[in-house]
Amino acid sequence: MDDKAGRTDFANPGDIELLRKAERENIQLGTDRLKKMMPQCGFGELGTCCTLCYLGPCRIDPFDSGPKLGVCGANADVIVARNFLRAAVGGASSHVGHARELVLLLLDVAEGKAPAYRIRDEAKLLSVASRLGVGTDGRTVDAIAADVARKAIEDFGRQDGKPMNWIRGRASKKEYEKWEKLGLIVSNPHNEIETAMHRTSMGNDADPMNLWVATLRMGIVDNFAGLMLATDISDILFGTPSPKVVSANYAVIKDGSVNIACHGHNPIMASKLVEWADKIEGEATAAGADRINVVGICCIGNELATRSGASYAGHLAQAELFLTTGAIDAMVVDVQCIWPSLATLAKCYKTRFITTVPFVRNPEAIHVEFHPETADERAKEILRHGIAAFRERKAGGVETCIPKASAKMLTGISVEALVSVLSAVDAHDPLAPVVNAVVSGDILGAVGVVGCPNPKLRQSSMTERMVAELLRNDVLVVTTGCTNHILAQAGFLTSEATEKYAGKKLRGVLAALGKAAGLGAPLPPVLHMGSCVDNSRIYDLLAALADKIGIEISQLPVAGSAPEFITEKAISIGSFFLAAGILVHVAPPPRVFGSPFAVDLLTEKLPGINGGKALVETDPEKAAAGIIAHIREKRQALGLAQV
Amino acid sequence: MDDKAGRTDFANPGDIELLRKAERENIQLGTDRLKKMMPQCGFGELGTCCTLCYLGPCRIDPFDSGPKLGVCGANADVIVARNFLRAAVGGASSHVGHARELVLLLLDVAEGKAPAYRIRDEAKLLSVASRLGVGTDGRTVDAIAADVARKAIEDFGRQDGKPMNWIRGRASKKEYEKWEKLGLIVSNPHNEIETAMHRTSMGNDADPMNLWVATLRMGIVDNFAGLMLATDISDILFGTPSPKVVSANYAVIKDGSVNIACHGHNPIMASKLVEWADKIEGEATAAGADRINVVGICCIGNELATRSGASYAGHLAQAELFLTTGAIDAMVVDVQCIWPSLATLAKCYKTRFITTVPFVRNPEAIHVEFHPETADERAKEILRHGIAAFRERKAGGVETCIPKASAKMLTGISVEALVSVLSAVDAHDPLAPVVNAVVSGDILGAVGVVGCPNPKLRQSSMTERMVAELLRNDVLVVTTGCTNHILAQAGFLTSEATEKYAGKKLRGVLAALGKAAGLGAPLPPVLHMGSCVDNSRIYDLLAALADKIGIEISQLPVAGSAPEFITEKAISIGSFFLAAGILVHVAPPPRVFGSPFAVDLLTEKLPGINGGKALVETDPEKAAAGIIAHIREKRQALGLAQV
Repeated sequence: MDDKAGRTDFANPGDIELLRKAERENIQLGTDRLKKMMPQCGFGELGTCCTLCYLGPCRIDPFDSGPKLGVCGANADVIVARNFLRAAVGGASSHVGHARELVLLLLDVAEGKAPAYRIRDEAKLLSVASRLGVGTDGRTVDAIAADVARKAIEDFGRQDGKPMNWIRGRASKKEYEKWEKLGLIVSNPHNEIETAMHRTSMGNDADPMNLWVATLRMGIVDNFAGLMLATDISDILFGTPSPKVVSANYAVIKDGSVNIACHGHNPIMASKLVEWADKIEGEATAAGADRINVVGICCIGNELATRSGASYAGHLAQAELFLTTGAIDAMVVDVQCIWPSLATLAKCYKTRFITTVPFVRNPEAIHVEFHPETADERAKEILRHGIAAFRERKAGGVETCIPKASAKMLTGISVEALVSVLSAVDAHDPLAPVVNAVVSGDILGAVGVVGCPNPKLRQSSMTERMVAELLRNDVLVVTTGCTNHILAQAGFLTSEATEKYAGKKLRGVLAALGKAAGLGAPLPPVLHMGSCVDNSRIYDLLAALADKIGIEISQLPVAGSAPEFITEKAISIGSFFLAAGILVHVAPPPRVFGSPFAVDLLTEKLPGINGGKALVETDPEKAAAGIIAHIREKRQALGLAQV
Repeated sequence: MDDKAGRTDFANPGDIELLRKAERENIQLGTDRLKKMMPQCGFGELGTCCTLCYLGPCRIDPFDSGPKLGVCGANADVIVARNFLRAAVGGASSHVGHARELVLLLLDVAEGKAPAYRIRDEAKLLSVASRLGVGTDGRTVDAIAADVARKAIEDFGRQDGKPMNWIRGRASKKEYEKWEKLGLIVSNPHNEIETAMHRTSMGNDADPMNLWVATLRMGIVDNFAGLMLATDISDILFGTPSPKVVSANYAVIKDGSVNIACHGHNPIMASKLVEWADKIEGEATAAGADRINVVGICCIGNELATRSGASYAGHLAQAELFLTTGAIDAMVVDVQCIWPSLATLAKCYKTRFITTVPFVRNPEAIHVEFHPETADERAKEILRHGIAAFRERKAGGVETCIPKASAKMLTGISVEALVSVLSAVDAHDPLAPVVNAVVSGDILGAVGVVGCPNPKLRQSSMTERMVAELLRNDVLVVTTGCTNHILAQAGFLTSEATEKYAGKKLRGVLAALGKAAGLGAPLPPVLHMGSCVDNSRIYDLLAALADKIGIEISQLPVAGSAPEFITEKAISIGSFFLAAGILVHVAPPPRVFGSPFAVDLLTEKLPGINGGKALVETDPEKAAAGIIAHIREKRQALGLAQV
């Protein structure tokens, strides 16, 4: 249904159906809690509230009457910068922790200590090894893998001040040199985290510029010791994603199956559930189910869909709604974005809510601690919880309500996969067709639309409307994370979407590429590159394109957007893309508006320093317009066709 | 002057004089900003404000009407626990950063890369080496020192999950075993910091107990990878403190001298200023000064006074007042507790405000970056700033006002020094006299009174009155940090104070010990053990005493108190002493009162788990009474004389 302005109504009918059910059942959801929390604290929203010591809590009044300085003398610029840096630390620490767990698993696998896992992608291993300077000639896969893992471990242990191996080996040359000049090359990611927490504690750094540089450095930590490290090792252990068509949305839940919803981020545990779901299917059929149906919520959905083609259920803000279907037998979680409400809500629907990580627990949950050494046993134990819950569901008569909302999506567009697809067009120069289309203006530019579904902006279909507007203007979109759940459910990841949403020129390019690649249909206008950690793939792609043209990433007619971000991880990812010299659009407003210095730096000064720029806009069409204007500027600077 | 209740008025006349001067000069100070900030945010004070993601800011209403859950579903118990853990991370990161810098310097010294420094305390080096299992026989000092440094570096790099070297080698046996049972032994301090930031980010740990255990673990990190590591290496590089009498309070500033006020924490830079102040005295006299007078503010005051006998100026909340004297030629700072206001204020009095650490800057400061390799050059450069400013002061007529307030104090009571003093009484069993006095009740118990001067509580002389009350009840007091500035200025660190404040029994013990040790006067009733990082010395002393008696530290009739704490470092130190099984008194109220779980755990449950307990009390006499009641309970449990 279109509104007066001709906009498509993107509301997911499954959401509406389940929200009504929850209301009938008097179930409180995140949207209810958000309503109750309004109005939210204005000091907090401006970033000018400081609780870093017990001289406070202090808060800077944006109006004339109130205090302009905290008790220690910190002004709004210092307070905002410290708070923002700490948020980036929270995000980077999450990604680094995720990556470090994978590194340790890779070492265990290489040393034969984790027989439940194996190296599935030797080509990726060899590629990463060669970037890191790890010798490969005449060596066993295990020996190479152990050395790759040790290169990462060396980064965490180094106190010599030398650049991280992962930056030296994996950064693009032009950006490396630029970061070196700007003091953004980091050595040991853990030293950086410690120092950032230290410098933001009371009575340390009081120089806003110094603090913002530290935030950009934290972005570098996030990308190279978090995102990219996680992506590289995940690819080695679980396989680099390749194109496949996957089912999405509520209809992936099946009343007659044992439904296991995995929620979280790290494929270590979830990949085992997928594997064992097939292996012990007999136990499920013995319980009266047709099969064990493992589906992914949040980024686990991305990790599973891109690699094994598992069903792609929904985003983090839908996790509660999936429980209200009454048909989830077990929700199994690892780390990040697991709302505490879920464990309580699961009880209402007799869903077994299972935590698996020692530092992510919930008093209302069943805890099955998952470690790689005992992965197979724990995976079976978890699935058997699901089978037992299925028996109870069928015996006890929990009323289920599974919306029919369903979608298909093309997924698995890693850089390697994209190059492989494009090789069908030009085997010697796979990126040429894309570059040529950009040069001619058939592709005006590209935007990475990433991040979360924020209930504050879901009502207005912020993400879908902004993406539709970008596509209409011939801007190609790539996505990761929960944003991709939103776009998949709205049908953007299909060949049909090219017809429906893409501007005429973009449509032509995508049709030609799809045909030349032998797909028999246009490429979708939105390409799914993976989970949130796979934002590193977007960087890799940009680096490859910039390198091919012989320019800096900051010169490309591209942008990043987190149109509904929620997490500290979005802050650290956004900080990286600012460091990379890219326009970063965000909504809701980041907590910087209490600081004139921050606003000036992020919108006026930084573009002149490294090309990075922040754009804050909560209206989807205006956001798209701002991004498109930026892309046109970049095109003009490069002397590309103005169309 | 005594008030009606017979209490001594402890207000420092120097403070009063300078506050009036500042008022006349229309200078805004911390006390003014605090007044303007009132009332402070109640949600912040309860700990129930959450800004960890952009679903928020959320805040839990302690009354019936408002929201009980954040948008993600986190309740007050989760929100409070996460915020508190993050504060502990801020504190531990500060101490770990401080320690790590010293470790890297020790390695440089051992490898001949930092010729401006040398190993001054070989005995301490050998003692630490033997605790760590580093071989010493037939090896050079440098070889041993390098291995000691590498043991610490190994802890920061380890990913094997094995306990930190510094815990294995330096923890007392009984506490080690207890912590092992409680899951409090940590492996890599940086992993802990990363994981703590990760688990507190949105959608991770939602188990309050799990989060509070993490806070206790952060306390262990703080002590063993922060405090104790810093103390051990500082002793090795700069000498273990020994008893000496030092001048304190405003009168240490001399109108005719080049006054250099060092403010901060790490002796690496300040020790060089002390050294070069003598070496280039000629330059000062050429400028018309009698000498270069290096004095210490905040913990640098402790570091310098205990080791080199440098004058002991004042605490962190007096740093602004020292500037208002107009007689400080340069204020030189390194890390922590440096109020941002100082740089601005320094300009009003033509004081050169000099930052020296890359991550602690201020746009209003002169930055002279200090690194050990160029320590001598930078020290001279800094001192020459002071000399130049002295010339300007004498030429340009800044009016100076140096209060006459002065004090003497006995300092340098490291554990080694205490044992050495007591050896004069019983060479074979130095601790016996203390233990015997505790057993008989002549010493009722002992309290470590530590931490900051909080303007919220300075008005009521919280620290002085509480300490006077403890002493009157025959409780021995040991101090560190800025608290010692408060107590030194009030005259507590003198033999006269024993006569004036100590109860009859304690007075007798201190007189006898002073006499037997050949001091010719009683020991002071308050013993100065050093800076904030030297709280590890208090742990070492307690461990030695408990070990001698054959009990756990938690069974000793002792307590800790931070009666006016400000910093996140106080949170992490306090968390360590809770982990060690000690009663920890704090004021102002920690941000836990929004969480029924936290209050119950810290006051009711924890005592039964490991003996740790929190006591919150802002009235000095009531605080003393609570501590004394606890000491009596502990005495009773041990069957000691009830007196």
